[in-house]
Amino acid sequence: MADILKLEKLAKLIRYWSLVSTTEAGSGHPSSSLSATDLMAGLLFGGAFRFDADRPEHPNNDRLIFSKGHASPLFYALWLAAGKVTEKEMLTLRKFNSPLEGHPTPAFTYTEAATGSLGQGLSIGVGMALNAKYIDKLPYRTYVLLGDSEMAEGSQWEAMEIAAYYKLDNLVGVIDVNGLGQRGETMYGHDLDLYKKRASAFGWEPIVIDGHYFPQILTAYEQTGRVHDKPVMIIAKTEKGKGVSFIEGRNGWHGKALKKDELLRALEELGPIDSTVRGEMQKPEDIKPEKPKAEKAKPLSYAGDKPISTRHAYGTALERLYPQYPDMVVLDAEVSNSTFAEIFKRTWPDRFFEMFIAEQNMVGSALGLSLRGRIPFVSTFAAFLTRAFDQIRMCQYSDSNIKFCGSHAGVSIGVDGSSQMGLEDIAMFRTILNSVVLYPSDAVSTEKLVEEAAKHMGIVYIRTTREDTPIIYRNDEVFRIGGSKVLKRSTKDVATVVAAGITLHEALAAYDELKKDRIFIGVLDLYSIKPIDVRTLTEAARDTGRIITVEDHFSEGGMGEAVRSALANVTVAIHSQAVRSMPKSGQPKELLDYEEISRKAIIKKVKKILKG
Amino acid sequence: MADILKLEKLAKLIRYWSLVSTTEAGSGHPSSSLSATDLMAGLLFGGAFRFDADRPEHPNNDRLIFSKGHASPLFYALWLAAGKVTEKEMLTLRKFNSPLEGHPTPAFTYTEAATGSLGQGLSIGVGMALNAKYIDKLPYRTYVLLGDSEMAEGSQWEAMEIAAYYKLDNLVGVIDVNGLGQRGETMYGHDLDLYKKRASAFGWEPIVIDGHYFPQILTAYEQTGRVHDKPVMIIAKTEKGKGVSFIEGRNGWHGKALKKDELLRALEELGPIDSTVRGEMQKPEDIKPEKPKAEKAKPLSYAGDKPISTRHAYGTALERLYPQYPDMVVLDAEVSNSTFAEIFKRTWPDRFFEMFIAEQNMVGSALGLSLRGRIPFVSTFAAFLTRAFDQIRMCQYSDSNIKFCGSHAGVSIGVDGSSQMGLEDIAMFRTILNSVVLYPSDAVSTEKLVEEAAKHMGIVYIRTTREDTPIIYRNDEVFRIGGSKVLKRSTKDVATVVAAGITLHEALAAYDELKKDRIFIGVLDLYSIKPIDVRTLTEAARDTGRIITVEDHFSEGGMGEAVRSALANVTVAIHSQAVRSMPKSGQPKELLDYEEISRKAIIKKVKKILKG
Repeated sequence: MADILKLEKLAKLIRYWSLVSTTEAGSGHPSSSLSATDLMAGLLFGGAFRFDADRPEHPNNDRLIFSKGHASPLFYALWLAAGKVTEKEMLTLRKFNSPLEGHPTPAFTYTEAATGSLGQGLSIGVGMALNAKYIDKLPYRTYVLLGDSEMAEGSQWEAMEIAAYYKLDNLVGVIDVNGLGQRGETMYGHDLDLYKKRASAFGWEPIVIDGHYFPQILTAYEQTGRVHDKPVMIIAKTEKGKGVSFIEGRNGWHGKALKKDELLRALEELGPIDSTVRGEMQKPEDIKPEKPKAEKAKPLSYAGDKPISTRHAYGTALERLYPQYPDMVVLDAEVSNSTFAEIFKRTWPDRFFEMFIAEQNMVGSALGLSLRGRIPFVSTFAAFLTRAFDQIRMCQYSDSNIKFCGSHAGVSIGVDGSSQMGLEDIAMFRTILNSVVLYPSDAVSTEKLVEEAAKHMGIVYIRTTREDTPIIYRNDEVFRIGGSKVLKRSTKDVATVVAAGITLHEALAAYDELKKDRIFIGVLDLYSIKPIDVRTLTEAARDTGRIITVEDHFSEGGMGEAVRSALANVTVAIHSQAVRSMPKSGQPKELLDYEEISRKAIIKKVKKILKG
Repeated sequence: MADILKLEKLAKLIRYWSLVSTTEAGSGHPSSSLSATDLMAGLLFGGAFRFDADRPEHPNNDRLIFSKGHASPLFYALWLAAGKVTEKEMLTLRKFNSPLEGHPTPAFTYTEAATGSLGQGLSIGVGMALNAKYIDKLPYRTYVLLGDSEMAEGSQWEAMEIAAYYKLDNLVGVIDVNGLGQRGETMYGHDLDLYKKRASAFGWEPIVIDGHYFPQILTAYEQTGRVHDKPVMIIAKTEKGKGVSFIEGRNGWHGKALKKDELLRALEELGPIDSTVRGEMQKPEDIKPEKPKAEKAKPLSYAGDKPISTRHAYGTALERLYPQYPDMVVLDAEVSNSTFAEIFKRTWPDRFFEMFIAEQNMVGSALGLSLRGRIPFVSTFAAFLTRAFDQIRMCQYSDSNIKFCGSHAGVSIGVDGSSQMGLEDIAMFRTILNSVVLYPSDAVSTEKLVEEAAKHMGIVYIRTTREDTPIIYRNDEVFRIGGSKVLKRSTKDVATVVAAGITLHEALAAYDELKKDRIFIGVLDLYSIKPIDVRTLTEAARDTGRIITVEDHFSEGGMGEAVRSALANVTVAIHSQAVRSMPKSGQPKELLDYEEISRKAIIKKVKKILKG
């Protein structure tokens, strides 16, 4: 039975700290925090939320995500009210090295995922709910606090539709409909019926409430437990700045901390605070998921005689490795017959999740899954991963463990044309802090690197090729993150061609052709673009005096620039072949020639360099 | 009065060519083309569509966008049926250098915008419709052919909500509900009622029809003219592969061209084709928009004594320049009080469009506006432009003319923390073919470069800073795309520090400090990162022998790597300071020090280099 008087005291305490901490910081979002206070206090301390605060990693804890990450003062104040943040800590909000950052990050113990880029929290919740329902098979629920303005983000509607499709009745969204955005009224103000219609149309069960009236708030949370096969959206009418009359419902207060005199007025209005009141949270059932037993994966067994695409090898690797890495889950965006994630799906359908043509939600869901201990492998065309760059960007701030695979890299995909060509994906993934960027050239190295990715903790990107390419490596060859392979080397080398993926094969063909003219080149397979094998590159630079990088990717931010940065301390001429002309439809060979990254272009370049 | 028998003949002809051209190409999407054939034949030749095919640029032509770009065979066949593509040309589908590319591009005369990355066409339509209704004030209508699978993309729902918000009753979406995606059934199959509910919930007028029955198709188009203040969504039940019994409604035919024997069977089923039948299109009213009269803009008049942020200067520039560039329109994603686009909004509200927290749609709409002759200036936080990378990527394939402004660049935004920091935006925009990437350091150069952007034809990105920074330049200083400014130079320089934006000020402060120790450095303001001033950089490299790049951006793909690429042919030591540690909340000064891109870090670096 919920003690409403106590909840009111807790809500007051939380409001107090939202205001005081932001005034102390001189910045922050108190008005956005005030509007959601009752909703959150009611959730955490009204009996619905089941969380062991001494064991935040307990696998059966409910999960709370602040999609409206700017309400971080509220988030931290909730945990103060739970007895887990001290008053002194609260006053460090936004200070350098404080775990209480401007928007929640994993520096703060109770942050599930870093948020702050709006419209991403519901997808993260989808991932956690998928994990609970279909993998861990635990009864924990995932709650996502949503702002009304951020419901304009299409990514939220991707999450809505996928959640309904997967019948995630363990997922609860709570929209704080305060009617005011950053610079004025939202599109719909307090038209709750509109949100209700949309939630229903997208297959959710809507519950409309007064977001400042505890009896309705508590009843709503209770009702969520009785809805089956559908996620629930609590649509709460609130006032931005609730509790402080001169802010309440007024435009112009977004992201504004109160000045000291304003704070005093506000605190006077709040009235006496019981500064010692603390809230209790229900504990979760102490059940753990079944830990899947790992078995050794079958080894590679390529005969080596038949060309096969690296995209196909990606699929066979996933399927082969799963028994050894049973935390793997595979997500794809309706192109699994192209990315070959379908090979995994056929054998392990319970660990494959079709995410439809909604890449943003796919990445957000992968983040949610990874934070619950899974190892997501996420695939689509390399070009379409750009659809989710903001979500990928946010993954780096969340201690995530996600493996991305972008297929159909480069102009060499051929006749489908430019819209389908991944030409900027290496650049995109290189910008991710501590990311690993891999570009295998044959099926063997692909499968080996997929396994390295599974073993690695962090964000990994694997770029795969559409075309079938010859097998270059033996089944027992070793590949490591940060490594490279010297495939051709002699004392007569006039240059080293550094390539990866499709252009590695072009380089090898160029080698054979040049050899006929008694011109020798080194050939280096730079399958690990990040981290990059500085040592081997340096040796090649020193030995041959010239480096020619060749990539099926735009020149900016790609392999060529990675090599230049790696060789910063070496005096060597570096020439970079990359995609520089407007890409178009054509046969792969025609396009590789047109973009001057083909064997012909490499030969021409080498001869030109030799002429001096 | 529509001649339905003729429409049936035209539809047959179009089906014939979708099949024949893809079989000839050996690839393509005939089944996706067949499902939408009747819808499109009915639109173009049934009286609704008003287009002068001899004057495709006529400002009052209706517009047709194929959001489902893979139905390109249908698109080209429609124009063959209109008499504008020859049979010989049709057979060049997907061939190298043919204007009939795998997905539509501007190489083909009647392509409005390059498509092929799903879920983007409706936003482009929103932009064109906004232009028609609010700027050109012309009665032309914009039609967007949509696939059902791509309605999973959140970007489509952003377009839906913004179109309804702006009462775009001149925008018609046509969903080809064929129930089959790339690798199986879509989420909703033929549940038309679901699409109807969603369209209604998002404020559109739904019209549900049989997508293969001309009387209903024609009636639907006619009805659209009678709907006011709401956009219309025609929801058509279709069969993928319609017209060929062994493909119709069957899974497994997505993206598959018929083999020659299959084609023969299919053509037999189609029956005799009248190969000479051609369709007539209604002509548009020959009215032109009022051409706004350009007046000279007021000149810059900074007193120079007060620091002011470059983000503020962006806003004042827009407002000041508009009279001279009356084709400008300004779009912002609910942060106009932060990006300062609001300064423009206050003076020129009719040319400002609030796009709410929906960046993907904002960029797609900007593309639509630009293709109709406007000059869109599109702003949000630099970090949030990553939300729309796929849309930005597609802009480069569309002859677009769009100016992007990303504010709140770098860690120097301070206490808001990592989610709000743009740290990968330079890398992102550098990958765009022929893009211009500008990073002004003071208010004067910002305003000058905003004007250069307005004059330039193509994609421009301007990065702005949150902090107030001193004015460095005089009001009459000249800045050009591809230029740079040498601010400090002497014969005693031990290195040249190359910086931009906030770090330029750090470099100048470091200069002053080092001078006290009688150590001299050159300082170069690299305000144009792309195209880059190779000549001035080369001179600096040769004169001083050392380059130190300093940027408030990740190291990968940013200014440092741009400089390395520019100096490829110069032997010089290049040191790069950039953001390499996990960003976090803190005061700007603390963060600049922490990331080693501050004046202190520059001084330390110079002294370390001198020690050898």
